Amino acid sequence: MKYEDYFKKYLDAVEAKLKTVMPAEEKHPPVIHDAMAYAVFTGGKRFRPVLTLTACEAVGGSIEKALLPACAVELIHSYSLVHDDLPALDNDDVRRGKPTCHKRYGEAMAILAGDGLLTYAFQLLAQVKPAARALSMIEELSTAAGTYGMIGGQVADLAIPPEDRDLPALDYISVHKTGKLIKASAVLGALAGDAQTENLERLRRFGEWIGLAFQAIDDMLDQDGYVQVLKAKDLRLKSRDLIAQSKREVKPLGKRGEKLIYLADFLLERIPRRTHVAVDR
Amino acid sequence: MKYEDYFKKYLDAVEAKLKTVMPAEEKHPPVIHDAMAYAVFTGGKRFRPVLTLTACEAVGGSIEKALLPACAVELIHSYSLVHDDLPALDNDDVRRGKPTCHKRYGEAMAILAGDGLLTYAFQLLAQVKPAARALSMIEELSTAAGTYGMIGGQVADLAIPPEDRDLPALDYISVHKTGKLIKASAVLGALAGDAQTENLERLRRFGEWIGLAFQAIDDMLDQDGYVQVLKAKDLRLKSRDLIAQSKREVKPLGKRGEKLIYLADFLLERIPRRTHVAVDR
Repeated sequence: MKYEDYFKKYLDAVEAKLKTVMPAEEKHPPVIHDAMAYAVFTGGKRFRPVLTLTACEAVGGSIEKALLPACAVELIHSYSLVHDDLPALDNDDVRRGKPTCHKRYGEAMAILAGDGLLTYAFQLLAQVKPAARALSMIEELSTAAGTYGMIGGQVADLAIPPEDRDLPALDYISVHKTGKLIKASAVLGALAGDAQTENLERLRRFGEWIGLAFQAIDDMLDQDGYVQVLKAKDLRLKSRDLIAQSKREVKPLGKRGEKLIYLADFLLERIPRRTHVAVDR
Repeated sequence: MKYEDYFKKYLDAVEAKLKTVMPAEEKHPPVIHDAMAYAVFTGGKRFRPVLTLTACEAVGGSIEKALLPACAVELIHSYSLVHDDLPALDNDDVRRGKPTCHKRYGEAMAILAGDGLLTYAFQLLAQVKPAARALSMIEELSTAAGTYGMIGGQVADLAIPPEDRDLPALDYISVHKTGKLIKASAVLGALAGDAQTENLERLRRFGEWIGLAFQAIDDMLDQDGYVQVLKAKDLRLKSRDLIAQSKREVKPLGKRGEKLIYLADFLLERIPRRTHVAVDR
Protein backbone atom coordinates (compact mmCIF):
# COMPACT_ATOMS: atom_id res chain seq x y z
CA MET A 1 0.00 0.00 0.00
CA LYS A 2 1.21 3.50 -0.80
CA TYR A 3 2.44 5.76 2.02
CA GLU A 4 -0.30 8.32 1.30
CA ASP A 5 -3.01 5.67 1.56
CA TYR A 6 -1.59 3.80 4.51
CA PHE A 7 -1.21 7.00 6.54
CA LYS A 8 -4.26 8.83 5.16
CA LYS A 9 -5.88 9.27 8.57
CA TYR A 10 -2.60 10.60 10.01
CA LEU A 11 -1.88 12.92 7.12
CA ASP A 12 -5.42 14.31 7.21
CA ALA A 13 -5.19 14.84 10.96
CA VAL A 14 -1.85 16.67 10.65
CA GLU A 15 -3.11 18.85 7.79
CA ALA A 16 -6.29 19.75 9.66
CA LYS A 17 -4.42 20.57 12.85
CA LEU A 18 -1.84 22.67 11.02
CA LYS A 19 -4.67 24.65 9.38
CA THR A 20 -6.22 25.24 12.81
CA VAL A 21 -3.09 26.33 14.62
CA MET A 22 -1.35 28.43 11.99
CA PRO A 23 -1.79 32.14 12.71
CA ALA A 24 -3.81 34.02 10.12
CA GLU A 25 -5.37 37.36 10.86
CA GLU A 26 -6.12 40.80 9.56
CA LYS A 27 -3.90 43.66 10.73
CA HIS A 28 -0.45 44.76 9.73
CA PRO A 29 1.31 41.43 9.57
CA PRO A 30 -0.98 39.36 7.29
CA VAL A 31 1.81 39.07 4.71
CA ILE A 32 4.04 37.26 7.19
CA HIS A 33 1.27 34.81 8.00
CA ASP A 34 0.85 34.23 4.27
CA ALA A 35 4.58 33.61 3.93
CA MET A 36 4.54 31.22 6.88
CA ALA A 37 1.57 29.30 5.46
CA TYR A 38 3.27 29.20 2.05
CA ALA A 39 6.27 27.55 3.70
CA VAL A 40 4.21 25.03 5.66
CA PHE A 41 1.62 23.94 3.07
CA THR A 42 3.92 22.77 0.33
CA GLY A 43 2.72 19.25 -0.39
CA GLY A 44 5.53 17.64 1.57
CA LYS A 45 5.43 14.05 2.80
CA ARG A 46 4.98 15.12 6.46
CA PHE A 47 7.40 12.35 7.43
CA ARG A 48 8.27 13.94 10.79
CA PRO A 49 4.75 14.62 12.10
CA VAL A 50 3.57 11.20 10.89
CA LEU A 51 6.48 9.72 12.85
CA THR A 52 5.37 11.69 15.94
CA LEU A 53 1.78 10.39 15.70
CA THR A 54 2.92 6.84 14.99
CA ALA A 55 5.39 6.87 17.89
CA CYS A 56 2.65 8.08 20.23
CA GLU A 57 0.33 5.28 19.12
CA ALA A 58 3.11 2.72 19.41
CA VAL A 59 3.42 3.41 23.14
CA GLY A 60 -0.34 3.27 23.66
CA GLY A 61 -1.38 6.91 23.21
CA SER A 62 -4.09 8.24 20.89
CA ILE A 63 -2.91 10.28 17.91
CA GLU A 64 -4.96 13.28 19.11
CA LYS A 65 -2.55 13.70 22.00
CA ALA A 66 0.38 13.95 19.61
CA LEU A 67 -1.06 16.47 17.16
CA LEU A 68 0.34 19.62 18.79
CA PRO A 69 3.91 18.31 19.02
CA ALA A 70 3.57 16.89 15.49
CA CYS A 71 2.74 20.39 14.23
CA ALA A 72 5.60 21.91 16.24
CA VAL A 73 8.08 19.51 14.65
CA GLU A 74 6.78 20.32 11.17
CA LEU A 75 7.07 24.07 11.84
CA ILE A 76 10.71 23.62 12.83
CA HIS A 77 11.32 21.58 9.69
CA SER A 78 9.58 24.24 7.55
CA TYR A 79 11.55 27.10 9.10
CA SER A 80 14.81 25.26 8.47
CA LEU A 81 13.96 24.85 4.78
CA VAL A 82 13.03 28.54 4.41
CA HIS A 83 16.30 29.71 5.96
CA ASP A 84 18.41 27.05 4.19
CA ASP A 85 17.01 28.15 0.83
CA LEU A 86 18.06 31.80 1.34
CA PRO A 87 20.58 33.33 -1.08
CA ALA A 88 23.22 33.56 1.67
CA LEU A 89 22.90 29.82 2.34
CA ASP A 90 21.91 27.30 -0.35
CA ASN A 91 20.47 29.95 -2.68
CA ASP A 92 17.67 27.74 -4.00
CA ASP A 93 14.98 29.26 -6.22
CA VAL A 94 12.68 26.27 -6.40
CA ARG A 95 11.41 23.77 -3.87
CA ARG A 96 9.00 21.00 -4.85
CA GLY A 97 8.34 22.70 -8.15
CA LYS A 98 7.34 26.03 -6.59
CA PRO A 99 9.30 29.25 -6.02
CA THR A 100 11.03 29.17 -2.62
CA CYS A 101 9.69 31.44 0.11
CA HIS A 102 12.17 34.24 -0.53
CA LYS A 103 11.56 34.10 -4.30
CA ARG A 104 7.84 34.51 -3.63
CA TYR A 105 7.85 36.95 -0.67
CA GLY A 106 11.30 38.53 -0.79
CA GLU A 107 14.32 37.84 1.34
CA ALA A 108 13.36 40.02 4.32
CA MET A 109 9.96 38.37 4.67
CA ALA A 110 11.47 34.89 4.30
CA ILE A 111 13.93 35.55 7.12
CA LEU A 112 11.11 36.81 9.33
CA ALA A 113 8.76 33.99 8.31
CA GLY A 114 11.42 31.48 9.36
CA ASP A 115 11.85 33.32 12.66
CA GLY A 116 8.08 33.31 13.09
CA LEU A 117 7.76 29.57 12.47
CA LEU A 118 10.60 28.79 14.87
CA THR A 119 9.09 30.99 17.58
CA TYR A 120 5.62 29.63 16.98
CA ALA A 121 6.75 26.02 17.36
CA PHE A 122 7.61 26.70 21.01
CA GLN A 123 4.44 28.71 21.54
CA LEU A 124 2.47 25.64 20.39
CA LEU A 125 4.38 23.24 22.62
CA ALA A 126 3.69 25.49 25.61
CA GLN A 127 0.01 24.54 25.19
CA VAL A 128 0.64 20.83 25.81
CA LYS A 129 -0.74 19.47 29.09
CA PRO A 130 0.46 18.70 31.71
CA ALA A 131 3.20 21.33 32.17
CA ALA A 132 5.95 18.79 32.87
CA ARG A 133 5.28 17.04 29.56
CA ALA A 134 5.25 20.31 27.62
CA LEU A 135 8.57 21.18 29.18
CA SER A 136 10.18 17.85 28.32
CA MET A 137 9.09 18.39 24.73
CA ILE A 138 10.44 21.96 24.61
CA GLU A 139 13.75 20.79 26.04
CA GLU A 140 13.98 17.95 23.54
CA LEU A 141 12.99 20.01 20.51
CA SER A 142 15.09 23.07 21.33
CA THR A 143 18.15 20.88 21.83
CA ALA A 144 17.52 18.98 18.58
CA ALA A 145 16.97 22.21 16.63
CA GLY A 146 19.80 24.23 18.19
CA THR A 147 23.52 24.54 17.61
CA TYR A 148 24.26 21.09 19.01
CA GLY A 149 21.62 19.72 16.66
CA MET A 150 20.17 20.90 13.37
CA ILE A 151 21.83 24.33 13.26
CA GLY A 152 25.17 22.70 14.09
CA GLY A 153 24.71 20.38 11.12
CA GLN A 154 23.93 23.28 8.85
CA VAL A 155 27.03 25.12 10.08
CA ALA A 156 29.19 22.07 9.39
CA ASP A 157 27.57 21.76 5.96
CA LEU A 158 28.62 25.36 5.24
CA ALA A 159 32.02 25.17 6.92
CA ILE A 160 33.45 21.90 5.57
CA PRO A 161 34.43 22.17 1.90
CA PRO A 162 33.17 19.24 -0.25
CA GLU A 163 36.72 18.01 -0.91
CA ASP A 164 37.37 17.66 2.84
CA ARG A 165 34.30 15.54 3.54
CA ASP A 166 35.33 12.13 4.73
CA LEU A 167 32.89 9.63 6.22
CA PRO A 168 33.08 11.03 9.79
CA ALA A 169 32.40 14.56 8.49
CA LEU A 170 29.43 13.36 6.44
CA ASP A 171 28.13 11.37 9.41
CA TYR A 172 28.38 14.50 11.55
CA ILE A 173 26.44 16.60 9.04
CA SER A 174 23.82 13.90 8.52
CA VAL A 175 23.32 13.12 12.22
CA HIS A 176 22.94 16.80 13.09
CA LYS A 177 21.28 18.40 10.09
CA THR A 178 18.67 15.68 9.60
CA GLY A 179 18.95 13.01 12.26
CA LYS A 180 18.40 15.04 15.42
CA LEU A 181 15.05 16.48 14.36
CA ILE A 182 13.78 13.10 13.17
CA LYS A 183 14.88 11.56 16.45
CA ALA A 184 13.11 14.36 18.34
CA SER A 185 9.95 13.70 16.28
CA ALA A 186 9.88 10.14 17.58
CA VAL A 187 10.70 11.20 21.15
CA LEU A 188 7.96 13.85 21.21
CA GLY A 189 5.46 11.23 20.08
CA ALA A 190 6.59 8.88 22.84
CA LEU A 191 6.30 11.70 25.39
CA ALA A 192 2.82 12.55 24.10
CA GLY A 193 1.86 8.91 24.62
CA ASP A 194 3.21 9.04 28.18
CA ALA A 195 5.79 6.35 27.45
CA GLN A 196 7.65 4.69 30.29
CA THR A 197 11.43 5.10 30.26
CA GLU A 198 12.14 1.81 28.49
CA ASN A 199 9.80 2.58 25.58
CA LEU A 200 10.92 6.19 25.44
CA GLU A 201 14.51 5.04 24.95
CA ARG A 202 13.34 2.47 22.41
CA LEU A 203 11.64 5.19 20.38
CA ARG A 204 14.67 7.44 20.77
CA ARG A 205 16.89 4.77 19.25
CA PHE A 206 14.32 4.03 16.54
CA GLY A 207 14.29 7.74 15.66
CA GLU A 208 18.05 7.80 15.58
CA TRP A 209 18.43 4.86 13.19
CA ILE A 210 15.62 5.92 10.93
CA GLY A 211 16.92 9.48 10.80
CA LEU A 212 20.28 8.26 9.56
CA ALA A 213 18.63 5.95 7.04
CA PHE A 214 16.45 8.83 5.83
CA GLN A 215 19.50 10.97 5.05
CA ALA A 216 21.47 8.12 3.46
CA ILE A 217 18.56 7.30 1.14
CA ASP A 218 17.98 10.96 0.32
CA ASP A 219 21.63 11.19 -0.65
CA MET A 220 21.19 8.24 -3.02
CA LEU A 221 18.12 9.83 -4.58
CA ASP A 222 19.81 13.26 -4.89
CA GLN A 223 23.25 11.86 -5.76
CA ASP A 224 24.68 13.98 -2.99
CA GLY A 225 26.49 13.69 0.35
CA TYR A 226 27.34 10.08 1.15
CA VAL A 227 27.55 9.10 -2.54
CA GLN A 228 30.79 11.09 -2.65
CA VAL A 229 32.60 8.79 -0.22
CA LEU A 230 30.74 5.48 -0.24
CA LYS A 231 30.37 3.03 -3.09
CA ALA A 232 26.72 2.80 -4.19
CA LYS A 233 26.65 -0.82 -3.10
CA ASP A 234 27.98 0.04 0.39
CA LEU A 235 25.56 2.93 0.80
CA ARG A 236 22.62 0.65 -0.06
CA LEU A 237 23.95 -1.84 2.47
CA LYS A 238 24.37 0.86 5.11
CA SER A 239 20.81 2.10 4.57
CA ARG A 240 19.34 -1.42 4.78
CA ASP A 241 21.33 -2.04 7.96
CA LEU A 242 20.06 1.15 9.57
CA ILE A 243 16.48 0.32 8.70
CA ALA A 244 16.85 -3.24 9.98
CA GLN A 245 18.24 -1.87 13.23
CA SER A 246 15.36 0.58 13.59
CA LYS A 247 12.83 -2.21 13.04
CA ARG A 248 14.51 -4.43 15.62
CA GLU A 249 14.15 -1.64 18.20
CA VAL A 250 10.37 -1.47 17.95
CA LYS A 251 9.60 -5.15 17.37
CA PRO A 252 9.01 -5.70 21.12
CA LEU A 253 6.12 -3.20 20.91
CA GLY A 254 4.17 -5.81 18.94
CA LYS A 255 1.05 -4.89 16.99
CA ARG A 256 0.96 -1.35 18.35
CA GLY A 257 4.33 -0.69 16.74
CA GLU A 258 3.47 -2.03 13.30
CA LYS A 259 3.00 1.42 11.75
CA LEU A 260 6.58 2.27 12.74
CA ILE A 261 7.69 -0.87 10.91
CA TYR A 262 5.72 0.29 7.90
CA LEU A 263 7.38 3.72 8.08
CA ALA A 264 10.80 2.05 8.09
CA ASP A 265 9.80 -0.22 5.19
CA PHE A 266 8.52 2.78 3.28
CA LEU A 267 12.03 4.26 3.42
CA LEU A 268 13.45 0.91 2.36
CA GLU A 269 11.32 1.00 -0.78
CA ARG A 270 12.74 4.36 -1.74
CA ILE A 271 16.26 2.91 -2.01
CA PRO A 272 17.12 2.99 -5.71
CA ARG A 273 17.91 -0.52 -7.11
CA ARG A 274 20.61 0.98 -9.23
CA THR A 275 21.92 4.52 -9.01
CA HIS A 276 21.60 6.48 -12.22
CA VAL A 277 25.07 7.93 -12.15
CA ALA A 278 28.01 5.58 -11.81
CA VAL A 279 29.67 6.80 -8.65
CA ASP A 280 31.25 3.48 -7.66
CA ARG A 281 34.93 4.00 -7.17
CA MET B 1 23.92 58.16 40.39
CA LYS B 2 24.75 56.74 36.98
CA TYR B 3 22.79 53.74 35.64
CA GLU B 4 25.96 51.63 35.46
CA ASP B 5 26.79 52.35 39.11
CA TYR B 6 23.27 52.08 40.47
CA PHE B 7 22.72 48.70 38.79
CA LYS B 8 26.31 47.41 39.07
CA LYS B 9 25.31 44.30 41.04
CA TYR B 10 22.56 43.52 38.51
CA LEU B 11 24.73 44.14 35.47
CA ASP B 12 27.54 42.00 36.88
CA ALA B 13 25.09 39.20 37.69
CA VAL B 14 23.61 39.27 34.17
CA GLU B 15 27.05 39.34 32.55
CA ALA B 16 28.29 36.44 34.67
CA LYS B 17 25.17 34.36 34.02
CA LEU B 18 25.30 35.01 30.28
CA LYS B 19 28.95 33.89 30.25
CA THR B 20 27.96 30.69 32.06
CA VAL B 21 24.99 29.75 29.92
CA MET B 22 26.20 30.67 26.44
CA PRO B 23 27.23 27.58 24.52
CA ALA B 24 30.91 27.39 23.68
CA GLU B 25 32.54 24.13 22.76
CA GLU B 26 35.03 22.44 20.51
CA LYS B 27 33.64 20.49 17.54
CA HIS B 28 32.33 21.56 14.18
CA PRO B 29 30.17 24.48 15.19
CA PRO B 30 32.57 26.65 17.27
CA VAL B 31 32.26 29.45 14.71
CA ILE B 32 28.53 29.75 15.33
CA HIS B 33 29.09 29.94 19.07
CA ASP B 34 31.64 32.68 18.41
CA ALA B 35 29.11 34.54 16.27
CA MET B 36 26.42 34.15 18.94
CA ALA B 37 28.75 35.42 21.67
CA TYR B 38 29.80 38.32 19.42
CA ALA B 39 26.13 39.29 19.13
CA VAL B 40 25.45 38.98 22.86
CA PHE B 41 28.54 40.62 24.38
CA THR B 42 28.40 43.99 22.70
CA GLY B 43 28.54 46.41 25.58
CA GLY B 44 24.82 47.11 25.52
CA LYS B 45 22.91 48.65 28.41
CA ARG B 46 21.16 45.34 29.26
CA PHE B 47 18.00 47.33 29.89
CA ARG B 48 15.71 44.30 29.43
CA PRO B 49 17.49 41.82 31.74
CA VAL B 50 17.98 44.54 34.38
CA LEU B 51 14.23 45.16 34.16
CA THR B 52 13.60 41.42 34.66
CA LEU B 53 15.79 41.28 37.78
CA THR B 54 14.32 44.49 39.16
CA ALA B 55 10.74 43.34 38.55
CA CYS B 56 11.47 40.08 40.36
CA GLU B 57 12.87 41.92 43.33
CA ALA B 58 9.96 44.36 43.34
CA VAL B 59 7.52 41.51 44.00
CA GLY B 60 9.72 40.03 46.72
CA GLY B 61 11.90 37.55 44.82
CA SER B 62 15.70 37.34 44.90
CA ILE B 63 17.51 38.34 41.71
CA GLU B 64 19.10 34.87 41.47
CA LYS B 65 15.69 33.45 40.62
CA ALA B 66 15.33 35.83 37.69
CA LEU B 67 18.74 35.32 36.07
CA LEU B 68 17.74 32.58 33.63
CA PRO B 69 14.72 34.46 32.26
CA ALA B 70 16.81 37.66 32.18
CA CYS B 71 19.34 35.88 29.95
CA ALA B 72 16.56 34.45 27.76
CA VAL B 73 15.13 37.92 27.19
CA GLU B 74 18.56 39.29 26.27
CA LEU B 75 19.14 36.43 23.81
CA ILE B 76 15.85 37.24 22.08
CA HIS B 77 16.83 40.91 21.94
CA SER B 78 20.28 40.00 20.55
CA TYR B 79 18.85 37.68 17.88
CA SER B 80 16.44 40.40 16.76
CA LEU B 81 19.31 42.86 16.29
CA VAL B 82 21.38 40.35 14.31
CA HIS B 83 18.51 39.58 11.93
CA ASP B 84 17.37 43.24 11.70
CA ASP B 85 20.88 44.29 10.70
CA LEU B 86 21.01 41.85 7.76
CA PRO B 87 21.38 43.27 4.23
CA ALA B 88 17.85 42.12 3.31
CA LEU B 89 16.43 44.07 6.26
CA ASP B 90 18.03 47.24 7.64
CA ASN B 91 21.39 46.57 6.00
CA ASP B 92 23.45 48.01 8.85
CA ASP B 93 27.23 47.61 8.81
CA VAL B 94 27.97 49.00 12.24
CA ARG B 95 26.36 48.57 15.65
CA ARG B 96 27.73 50.29 18.74
CA GLY B 97 30.91 51.13 16.85
CA LYS B 98 31.65 47.54 15.84
CA PRO B 99 30.97 45.65 12.60
CA THR B 100 27.55 43.98 12.72
CA CYS B 101 27.42 40.20 13.04
CA HIS B 102 27.05 39.57 9.30
CA LYS B 103 29.89 41.96 8.48
CA ARG B 104 32.12 40.05 10.88
CA TYR B 105 30.97 36.45 10.28
CA GLY B 106 29.20 36.59 6.94
CA GLU B 107 25.52 36.59 6.15
CA ALA B 108 24.94 32.84 6.38
CA MET B 109 26.49 32.60 9.82
CA ALA B 110 24.58 35.67 11.04
CA ILE B 111 21.26 34.13 9.97
CA LEU B 112 22.15 30.89 11.75
CA ALA B 113 23.51 32.70 14.82
CA GLY B 114 20.20 34.54 15.12
CA ASP B 115 18.34 31.24 14.78
CA GLY B 116 20.62 29.73 17.39
CA LEU B 117 20.04 32.55 19.90
CA LEU B 118 16.27 32.38 19.40
CA THR B 119 16.24 28.60 19.88
CA TYR B 120 18.56 28.79 22.86
CA ALA B 121 16.37 31.32 24.66
CA PHE B 122 13.61 28.71 24.92
CA GLN B 123 16.08 25.98 25.83
CA LEU B 124 17.19 28.16 28.76
CA LEU B 125 13.64 28.90 29.91
CA ALA B 126 12.88 25.16 29.91
CA GLN B 127 15.37 24.89 32.80
CA VAL B 128 13.34 27.16 35.10
CA LYS B 129 11.68 25.43 38.05
CA PRO B 130 8.90 24.59 38.70
CA ALA B 131 7.58 23.41 35.33
CA ALA B 132 4.42 25.52 35.47
CA ARG B 133 6.48 28.71 35.92
CA ALA B 134 8.82 27.80 33.07
CA LEU B 135 5.83 27.23 30.85
CA SER B 136 4.20 30.57 31.72
CA MET B 137 7.48 32.25 30.82
CA ILE B 138 7.79 30.39 27.51
CA GLU B 139 4.21 31.29 26.61
CA GLU B 140 4.77 34.94 27.50
CA LEU B 141 8.10 35.27 25.70
CA SER B 142 7.12 33.34 22.55
CA THR B 143 3.99 35.47 22.20
CA ALA B 144 5.94 38.70 22.74
CA ALA B 145 8.64 37.68 20.26
CA GLY B 146 6.34 36.19 17.59
CA THR B 147 4.27 37.58 14.74
CA TYR B 148 1.74 39.20 17.07
CA GLY B 149 4.63 40.83 18.89
CA MET B 150 8.17 41.77 17.88
CA ILE B 151 8.22 40.09 14.47
CA GLY B 152 4.86 41.69 13.65
CA GLY B 153 6.35 45.09 14.48
CA GLN B 154 9.32 44.42 12.25
CA VAL B 155 7.00 43.37 9.41
CA ALA B 156 4.99 46.58 9.80
CA ASP B 157 8.24 48.56 9.87
CA LEU B 158 9.17 46.98 6.52
CA ALA B 159 5.69 47.09 5.02
CA ILE B 160 4.53 50.64 5.79
CA PRO B 161 6.35 53.25 3.68
CA PRO B 162 7.66 56.24 5.70
CA GLU B 163 5.26 58.65 3.97
CA ASP B 164 2.25 56.58 5.10
CA ARG B 165 3.21 56.55 8.77
CA ASP B 166 0.61 58.35 10.80
CA LEU B 167 0.49 58.23 14.59
CA PRO B 168 -1.53 54.95 14.78
CA ALA B 169 0.95 53.26 12.42
CA LEU B 170 3.93 54.48 14.45
CA ASP B 171 2.22 53.38 17.66
CA TYR B 172 1.66 49.93 16.15
CA ILE B 173 5.31 49.59 15.14
CA SER B 174 6.56 50.89 18.49
CA VAL B 175 4.22 48.76 20.62
CA HIS B 176 5.11 45.61 18.71
CA LYS B 177 8.74 46.01 17.69
CA THR B 178 9.97 47.31 21.04
CA GLY B 179 7.15 47.40 23.58
CA LYS B 180 6.12 43.75 23.69
CA LEU B 181 9.58 42.41 24.53
CA ILE B 182 10.12 45.07 27.23
CA LYS B 183 6.73 44.24 28.68
CA ALA B 184 7.60 40.53 28.64
CA SER B 185 10.89 41.32 30.41
CA ALA B 186 8.93 42.81 33.30
CA VAL B 187 6.38 39.98 33.32
CA LEU B 188 9.08 37.29 33.36
CA GLY B 189 10.67 38.99 36.35
CA ALA B 190 7.34 39.07 38.15
CA LEU B 191 6.77 35.40 37.34
CA ALA B 192 10.27 34.55 38.60
CA GLY B 193 9.40 36.33 41.85
CA ASP B 194 6.20 34.29 42.14
CA ALA B 195 4.05 37.42 42.01
CA GLN B 196 0.38 37.24 42.89
CA THR B 197 -2.06 38.21 40.13
CA GLU B 198 -2.43 41.83 41.24
CA ASN B 199 1.30 42.51 41.24
CA LEU B 200 1.80 40.54 38.05
CA GLU B 201 -0.70 42.80 36.28
CA ARG B 202 0.94 45.84 37.88
CA LEU B 203 4.31 44.81 36.45
CA ARG B 204 2.72 44.03 33.11
CA ARG B 205 1.33 47.57 32.91
CA PHE B 206 4.62 49.04 34.13
CA GLY B 207 6.41 47.13 31.36
CA GLU B 208 3.91 48.37 28.82
CA TRP B 209 4.26 52.07 29.70
CA ILE B 210 8.01 51.94 30.04
CA GLY B 211 8.36 50.07 26.76
CA LEU B 212 6.49 52.81 24.95
CA ALA B 213 8.51 55.51 26.69
CA PHE B 214 11.72 53.69 25.77
CA GLN B 215 10.83 53.79 22.06
CA ALA B 216 9.62 57.39 22.12
CA ILE B 217 12.85 58.54 23.76
CA ASP B 218 14.96 56.46 21.39
CA ASP B 219 13.17 58.15 18.51
CA MET B 220 14.06 61.56 19.96
CA LEU B 221 17.70 60.56 20.34
CA ASP B 222 17.85 59.03 16.84
CA GLN B 223 15.61 61.67 15.22
CA ASP B 224 13.52 58.85 13.82
CA GLY B 225 10.00 57.40 14.02
CA TYR B 226 7.72 59.57 16.16
CA VAL B 227 9.67 62.75 15.38
CA GLN B 228 8.18 62.55 11.90
CA VAL B 229 4.61 63.03 13.11
CA LEU B 230 4.82 64.64 16.55
CA LYS B 231 6.12 68.06 17.43
CA ALA B 232 9.26 67.80 19.56
CA LYS B 233 7.42 69.42 22.45
CA ASP B 234 4.52 66.95 22.21
CA LEU B 235 6.84 63.98 22.01
CA ARG B 236 8.69 65.13 25.15
CA LEU B 237 5.31 65.51 26.83
CA LYS B 238 4.19 62.07 25.68
CA SER B 239 7.39 60.46 26.99
CA ARG B 240 7.10 62.19 30.37
CA ASP B 241 3.45 61.12 30.61
CA LEU B 242 4.32 57.49 29.86
CA ILE B 243 7.07 57.47 32.45
CA ALA B 244 4.83 59.13 35.03
CA GLN B 245 2.19 56.47 34.36
CA SER B 246 4.72 53.66 34.72
CA LYS B 247 5.89 55.08 38.06
CA ARG B 248 2.33 55.38 39.35
CA GLU B 249 1.81 51.68 38.63
CA VAL B 250 4.62 50.50 40.89
CA LYS B 251 4.32 53.10 43.64
CA PRO B 252 2.09 50.76 45.73
CA LEU B 253 5.01 48.30 45.87
CA GLY B 254 6.80 50.73 48.19
CA LYS B 255 10.49 50.39 48.94
CA ARG B 256 10.80 47.07 47.09
CA GLY B 257 9.79 48.81 43.89
CA GLU B 258 12.19 51.73 44.14
CA LYS B 259 14.63 50.31 41.60
CA LEU B 260 11.82 50.24 39.04
CA ILE B 261 11.24 53.93 39.77
CA TYR B 262 14.96 54.53 39.22
CA LEU B 263 14.80 52.65 35.91
CA ALA B 264 11.91 54.87 34.80
CA ASP B 265 13.76 58.02 35.95
CA PHE B 266 16.86 56.86 34.10
CA LEU B 267 14.84 56.92 30.87
CA LEU B 268 13.48 60.34 31.81
CA GLU B 269 17.02 61.69 32.05
CA ARG B 270 17.75 60.55 28.52
CA ILE B 271 15.06 62.84 27.09
CA PRO B 272 16.90 65.57 25.20
CA ARG B 273 16.14 69.09 26.54
CA ARG B 274 16.14 70.40 23.01
CA THR B 275 16.25 68.33 19.85
CA HIS B 276 19.20 69.08 17.58
CA VAL B 277 17.24 69.20 14.37
CA ALA B 278 14.23 71.47 14.17
CA VAL B 279 11.42 69.06 13.35
CA ASP B 280 8.63 71.13 14.88
CA ARG B 281 5.96 71.67 12.28
